[in-house]
Amino acid sequence: MEVLKISANSKPKFVAGAIAAAVRNEGGAEIHAIGAGAVNQAIKSVAIARGYVVSNDIDLVCIPTFTKINVDGVEKTGIKLLVTVRQREADS
Amino acid sequence: MEVLKISANSKPKFVAGAIAAAVRNEGGAEIHAIGAGAVNQAIKSVAIARGYVVSNDIDLVCIPTFTKINVDGVEKTGIKLLVTVRQREADS
Repeated sequence: MEVLKISANSKPKFVAGAIAAAVRNEGGAEIHAIGAGAVNQAIKSVAIARGYVVSNDIDLVCIPTFTKINVDGVEKTGIKLLVTVRQREADS
Repeated sequence: MEVLKISANSKPKFVAGAIAAAVRNEGGAEIHAIGAGAVNQAIKSVAIARGYVVSNDIDLVCIPTFTKINVDGVEKTGIKLLVTVRQREADS
């Protein structure tokens, strides 16, 4: 699954496009973000990506977990957002 | 559904407890956050809450959307996180 590394300077609209492409092609995406600014951009990106894939009848959800991310040899605690597709109810 | 208003000063462990309680009692929770610091605390809270409810065999996911939030008469754009339970696969 594609890993998207987000910083506080990432542009949510562009990240959303990458998420949408990864979801359509691979069924999901993994986002790594360290720090409040990066996490905020990541969440905004997912919110925008939901709109991009709604026409494909895809309902995106995200699963946040803590993760250790290696930055230039230093281990930092960051947020991993697993973006995945929510299954529709069987009877809908 | 319970609405939890998160600020940059909210304590993720306490918010996680409130999310876990709302999910167990009502099946979900709604989180409102304005600004990067608040969104970051909200996401950390969901990550912690996932651990709290895993013993109940509950798999939490969140759905981020943009929302207008009224703060002291001023309308601001914030993030609404819908925290909900992912249905298990029927055959698992």
